[in-house]
Amino acid sequence: MKTDLDTLLQSYAFDGLLVVGAGDHNPAMMYLTGGGHFTGELIKKRGEKPLLFCRMMERDEAAKTGLPTKLIDDYKPVELLKQAGGNVLKASVRRYQMMLDECGLSTGRVAVYGRTELGSMFSVLSQVQAAMPGLIFEGEAGNTMLMEAQLTKDASEAAHIRKMGQITTAVVGQVAEFLTSHKVKGKVLVKPDGQPLTIGEVKNRINLWLAERGAENPQGTIFAIGRDAGVPHSSGNPTDPLRLGKTIVFDIYPCEEGGGYFYDFTRTWCLGYATDEAIKLYEDVLVVYNQITSELKVNAPYKTYQQRTCELFEGLGHPTVKSNPETQVGYIHSVGHGVGLNIHERPWSGMSAGDADRLVPGAVFTIEPGLYYPDRGLGVRLENTVWVDPDGGFEIMADYPMDLILPMKSG
Amino acid sequence: MKTDLDTLLQSYAFDGLLVVGAGDHNPAMMYLTGGGHFTGELIKKRGEKPLLFCRMMERDEAAKTGLPTKLIDDYKPVELLKQAGGNVLKASVRRYQMMLDECGLSTGRVAVYGRTELGSMFSVLSQVQAAMPGLIFEGEAGNTMLMEAQLTKDASEAAHIRKMGQITTAVVGQVAEFLTSHKVKGKVLVKPDGQPLTIGEVKNRINLWLAERGAENPQGTIFAIGRDAGVPHSSGNPTDPLRLGKTIVFDIYPCEEGGGYFYDFTRTWCLGYATDEAIKLYEDVLVVYNQITSELKVNAPYKTYQQRTCELFEGLGHPTVKSNPETQVGYIHSVGHGVGLNIHERPWSGMSAGDADRLVPGAVFTIEPGLYYPDRGLGVRLENTVWVDPDGGFEIMADYPMDLILPMKSG
Repeated sequence: MKTDLDTLLQSYAFDGLLVVGAGDHNPAMMYLTGGGHFTGELIKKRGEKPLLFCRMMERDEAAKTGLPTKLIDDYKPVELLKQAGGNVLKASVRRYQMMLDECGLSTGRVAVYGRTELGSMFSVLSQVQAAMPGLIFEGEAGNTMLMEAQLTKDASEAAHIRKMGQITTAVVGQVAEFLTSHKVKGKVLVKPDGQPLTIGEVKNRINLWLAERGAENPQGTIFAIGRDAGVPHSSGNPTDPLRLGKTIVFDIYPCEEGGGYFYDFTRTWCLGYATDEAIKLYEDVLVVYNQITSELKVNAPYKTYQQRTCELFEGLGHPTVKSNPETQVGYIHSVGHGVGLNIHERPWSGMSAGDADRLVPGAVFTIEPGLYYPDRGLGVRLENTVWVDPDGGFEIMADYPMDLILPMKSG
Repeated sequence: MKTDLDTLLQSYAFDGLLVVGAGDHNPAMMYLTGGGHFTGELIKKRGEKPLLFCRMMERDEAAKTGLPTKLIDDYKPVELLKQAGGNVLKASVRRYQMMLDECGLSTGRVAVYGRTELGSMFSVLSQVQAAMPGLIFEGEAGNTMLMEAQLTKDASEAAHIRKMGQITTAVVGQVAEFLTSHKVKGKVLVKPDGQPLTIGEVKNRINLWLAERGAENPQGTIFAIGRDAGVPHSSGNPTDPLRLGKTIVFDIYPCEEGGGYFYDFTRTWCLGYATDEAIKLYEDVLVVYNQITSELKVNAPYKTYQQRTCELFEGLGHPTVKSNPETQVGYIHSVGHGVGLNIHERPWSGMSAGDADRLVPGAVFTIEPGLYYPDRGLGVRLENTVWVDPDGGFEIMADYPMDLILPMKSG
């Protein structure tokens, strides 16, 4: 949690951290500031409060974070640019040196975060480092210190995620109602004008209904039918019609407006009826989902459930990434991931999992077994998001039926 | 334009370019791929077609770009990770080396782009560079090569922006209709239940109406009243009520769903009536707006209009950034910026403007003079987005009245 940050800086041997970029759609900046409509830098020396640097025009937005702020304008950017002979990069390098100096970080190991334009920042940081001997920027890959802090959510963060779960399932319910209210012509859903309803139109509704509830889906929505459902990250073809009896993988992962906390949720639907083949596949996934959730134990390594999921699917006769890491059919991803200000964050259950990736109290994670057979036009995935409460209980953060078949109202 | 890329690589002395990150909400990747639901790397050697690297799960989405693609999975990430002793960073560094080798870029100057997590990529690129002598990554700051290509839009790009302009002005019209249909109690707009309408509620409507039209506003919307209107980038306080007679700066900058082309538009409104002080300020801004747009000349340096705007405002008795670069009142920003896959891009009119920042055919840019007096509770800005067509004509890309006062329907 956020309160662990100084301890984590110590244990990762960092002297401080630097976060760059906007206050929105930037998980690290949102985590440390609460977000807002500003762009700047946050610098924190170990043991001290973070200092937020912003431009004069955004001073009010920055002030709302409650953090001490400092104006970038105080470094006289016009003059810096003049001194740098009009070279924007050099002027930025000089300003970064001054800001780091001011925070007592002219030497030491500084962890770097922020979702931003890579190009210019790569050069700025490289040159600042070259100009300040004894200063080392370290961008972490894989399991970062901040992601370790973010792995556990306090009750207020869990409340944000739970609210997103309620919004998500409400929208999923609207989608089900919307689809099943359509007429059918030649096994295809048609609109009142007789034209086929398309996936693109369904997605527009989803966006609308999310917006109505103050949510957004910056990374889109997976609504994939038939063969596309058999490719885990195919988002679905907007011009495709909706055909009865085909599996639809509906994976929805919206976040709070401005890029706050996410929720992650998947159901697989067949409209009207399902083939025996689809039902069999669905049942295999449901059995594994139920078995895994029944075996969840507080503090257990998350990856043991990935192993377990592979074993269970293999017992049911499906290829998995365990028996063949390169398989393109069967069970081909990991059992889940953490969810927070990033749609994918720690804990990890797949090959990136480390020792800290455990189902500790405060962890929010998904359970999402799936089976994929694109050449048979089939894919099934079922997913819920789970919070480990402070007492070690497992809370599925939003309820929604797991049914495969959605009966059409027109019969 | 995109077709200029090899010429630009040559003239910037780059041997190739590397773009990292997602296919959505990532301007450089969208520009070179057309976007999509994938995350990976694009590498282009000068004179050759770009190669797009993606994961197996996203192969179909990547294939939709029409570019040659290659699977990251072919580099056997599991094995790479094992060889790297489980160090994710080292495994990524090795994979980047192999990909660059494959594209014939094991040496040379490579320009770096992409909106992504800075931390890990800073370390990956630093270590790749250390491991491949003769290879230099260069992130450009300020005026990048890609931004120079993007400065001019072809007719198809202009059509995207024009469509966003139509969506934007349609939503602005809905907001005006919505506001003026409210009842008023004690000079405050109230809802049917008698409670004050808040800025937060207005913004929810804006999000909804944008989503209905297949647009989104990833960077929010400025809807700021009174003192907040006097602070150019204050986005407005969600709990504030709407009071008659106060200036409202309504700056809306949505983009196509998934992070495509933007539009940028501002009006200043007073509900019901305006004070003499507000009217005077509004008229000063409108006079300058009209004067500047009447003086636009094809191929002129954009920054000459910044100079001209300052002169005009000073002639009207307002402080400006020309007479005092640090002024916090009067005219305190630049006259505009380019608009495209980034809400702010070249051409520049302010202190970052270079020689190429001209109103050349294909440029899309804003004209947005404004005056700010926060202590008097006043701010006015008027903004339209303009395209220079291939014949050198200036097209305001979406029409909308410039009126200050919105009469309330209730009288």
